[in-house]
Amino acid sequence: MKNEKIVIIGAVAAGSKCAFKTKRDCPDCDIWVYTEEQFVSYSACGLPFYIEGTIKDADSLIVKTPKDYEKAGINIHIQHRLLEIKPKEKVIVVKNLKSDLIFETSYDKLVLACGARPFVPEIENQQFKNIFTLRTIPDGINIKNKMGTSKNALIIGGGYIGIELLEAFVKNGLNVTMIEASSHIMSLFDEDMSDDIEKYILSKNPNQVRIIKNDYVVSFEGDDNGVKFANTKAGGKIPTDLVVIAVGVMPNTEIAKAAGIELGVKNSIRVNKKMQTNISDIYAIGDCAENINLVSNTPTWIPLGVTANKEGRCCAINLSGKEDEFEGVLGSAVTRYFDYAMSLTGLNEKTAKNLGYDIVSEKVTKHDRTIEPIKEITIKVIADRRSQQLLGVQAIGCGDADKRVNTAASALSCHKKIGELVNLDLTYAPPYSASIDPLLTAFIALQDKLEKEQ
Amino acid sequence: MKNEKIVIIGAVAAGSKCAFKTKRDCPDCDIWVYTEEQFVSYSACGLPFYIEGTIKDADSLIVKTPKDYEKAGINIHIQHRLLEIKPKEKVIVVKNLKSDLIFETSYDKLVLACGARPFVPEIENQQFKNIFTLRTIPDGINIKNKMGTSKNALIIGGGYIGIELLEAFVKNGLNVTMIEASSHIMSLFDEDMSDDIEKYILSKNPNQVRIIKNDYVVSFEGDDNGVKFANTKAGGKIPTDLVVIAVGVMPNTEIAKAAGIELGVKNSIRVNKKMQTNISDIYAIGDCAENINLVSNTPTWIPLGVTANKEGRCCAINLSGKEDEFEGVLGSAVTRYFDYAMSLTGLNEKTAKNLGYDIVSEKVTKHDRTIEPIKEITIKVIADRRSQQLLGVQAIGCGDADKRVNTAASALSCHKKIGELVNLDLTYAPPYSASIDPLLTAFIALQDKLEKEQ
Repeated sequence: MKNEKIVIIGAVAAGSKCAFKTKRDCPDCDIWVYTEEQFVSYSACGLPFYIEGTIKDADSLIVKTPKDYEKAGINIHIQHRLLEIKPKEKVIVVKNLKSDLIFETSYDKLVLACGARPFVPEIENQQFKNIFTLRTIPDGINIKNKMGTSKNALIIGGGYIGIELLEAFVKNGLNVTMIEASSHIMSLFDEDMSDDIEKYILSKNPNQVRIIKNDYVVSFEGDDNGVKFANTKAGGKIPTDLVVIAVGVMPNTEIAKAAGIELGVKNSIRVNKKMQTNISDIYAIGDCAENINLVSNTPTWIPLGVTANKEGRCCAINLSGKEDEFEGVLGSAVTRYFDYAMSLTGLNEKTAKNLGYDIVSEKVTKHDRTIEPIKEITIKVIADRRSQQLLGVQAIGCGDADKRVNTAASALSCHKKIGELVNLDLTYAPPYSASIDPLLTAFIALQDKLEKEQ
Repeated sequence: MKNEKIVIIGAVAAGSKCAFKTKRDCPDCDIWVYTEEQFVSYSACGLPFYIEGTIKDADSLIVKTPKDYEKAGINIHIQHRLLEIKPKEKVIVVKNLKSDLIFETSYDKLVLACGARPFVPEIENQQFKNIFTLRTIPDGINIKNKMGTSKNALIIGGGYIGIELLEAFVKNGLNVTMIEASSHIMSLFDEDMSDDIEKYILSKNPNQVRIIKNDYVVSFEGDDNGVKFANTKAGGKIPTDLVVIAVGVMPNTEIAKAAGIELGVKNSIRVNKKMQTNISDIYAIGDCAENINLVSNTPTWIPLGVTANKEGRCCAINLSGKEDEFEGVLGSAVTRYFDYAMSLTGLNEKTAKNLGYDIVSEKVTKHDRTIEPIKEITIKVIADRRSQQLLGVQAIGCGDADKRVNTAASALSCHKKIGELVNLDLTYAPPYSASIDPLLTAFIALQDKLEKEQ
């Protein structure tokens, strides 16, 4: 509200969105932003594409600079680390990383947009050069620089970032090993879909790519020039001169926890729909905050840039004295490996089972359009047998898979039943679809299955 | 139901779907299909792409042949025209067009899938050769044959088929004039969107394409070789050796009306959600049947192949003794002109106003993705000021416009308000979208506008 001092910790998607919108909606607010990073308001999702070379210049990942903050009337402090929150006194303790000066500053409202950081498993000898994680712009620049002189890359982790880095490294001529501790890469997808994805990846560049599953790296070997080998639990010895660890992220919430802020799923900060924590006048948004899954109405933690943006907007509206609620997420996501799209929304079979749903699913492989360039897509739809409610959709393939997932996402947020979805009025023309859209074919197949069971 | 004699009139999308599904679900049903056409179960939507040459072979437009009907155990009679329905006696009068034999046949259930036919305005001297309409496979073959020797084509009507034929003719090197009686081509779109479409079309092939609006053809001139000129109301004289009249379609419902079957919007056959007409045991499906607009819950008539398919399925389920209801349509549609997509769903401004909505709209032009090939799309969202309910979405441009319209279609069928849509959880990765999807940007712009008005 007017004349309040609002302190925001973090300045990537959520923090930046919140700062700028609050200032626009409430010009009299006194806004202070602290980030321990050097860069603000950048597209972390673009980093693999910068490494790949599709995005030519790291600068173009930057949406706003500290100068843009200043021009907007926002007090921005880069390279300042949050050390402590004192909720009773309504002050925070901050360290200037350049001068090492530690100081206190007060707030009327505090917004935690602290983000998440790469989870790094225990591996011996991580001190060698050329072992990276990918989160920030300097990470991206470092990996890209090293890639230029590398022959054999190792990607630890078979998730979204792993797949995007795989494309980047393969396009740049490297031999790449991907190692995944679980039985499946891209494990947000169901196992049958993951199998299809892996099959495509291996068929696309059979000589450049090797995928190891059910195994993990226990130690590195190297010398002054950097890492040379990775040794696996199963006894494998992988020659490599470039390692990226991409096994997932964890929320930066230790300081919040120490201040008595309640944590939720996977130690993310529990918030209500107004993005408020359990402590008055402290908000949390973006990758450090917990989410509600809109399908199951249960707490979850799905840190994504698109959600950070929306939560930043919601928080800003509330800070400005109006009211807004962020209802939750579906976990909609997409990536690609060359021409092959991998897209999903809602619950996968495993998560749905764990939540107690009686799941039933169908999977169809169809042409994505009727005239060239015709490509195949595989769509899997998952529903709850009792309520017949749609729970999730996954779509993969070289065709237009992502369109179908977004259409389904929209339906998911309305808690539609399968029977209500078979007649969804989707567009059709030969360059865009089939007269029965593949998504509807999948819904019809599932509806037929449900009817046969009755 | 078991052993019933089901007679279906028409064998393109609706009739064919209904016949095959009924036979599958109810193998003991005795199914008789009559069509006055020579071909059955073909993709009428593919015809412009066949003329263009993208679909190489007219045969590939055919989904099923009369032999496929016979194999399935369906009695199929091509080139048989319905002359009369006698509901009291439950018989129909049919003429065999090859033998000229007229006969009666009885039914337990009658399904009218009579389709629609091109509306042909009054123009003098239509007897000349090389003046066509486009509805059937022979139409497509005749136009394609003539195109091969033509230099100057004239398309009468600036709707979907007109635009698709324009692409076909331009790709084949013809000079094309399109004449549209109203002030705008593609008039299912709002006028501002139509202006953008026209601007693109004229910029794409400036030397080959001419668009005349607010004028219409009153007479043709020609000789034994065929049409040579079209004279317009405003005094224009258009040299042409190939004319296609594509000003819209009208339902084939004269015989139904004569039998006492109630008609609705634009003389389409009024049906309930089970696809039943007002006369017991007579159903109507496909292009000859009226629809309910799901946004406004009012009767409309939007004849489209995708709807025909769904209505055929619904009717088949009801004929088989189970129950199914077809709720209605959104009028979702898409076409393209070369790389430029034109896609819409729901109500446009004019229709919404006529229905009494207090419309408010916003329009944004954005990149469709973050990495190359980046293209622009323009999205217009229309809502009702009072209820804040989304009424319609239109998207055009060289980028991925259709994805956004299908996502919106799904939301429209849930009667979502704009405020509920700004946080829709859509997928994001640089090859597929922006971190705030253009559709969400449009929703946010409209939400901001609505808030400012309050």
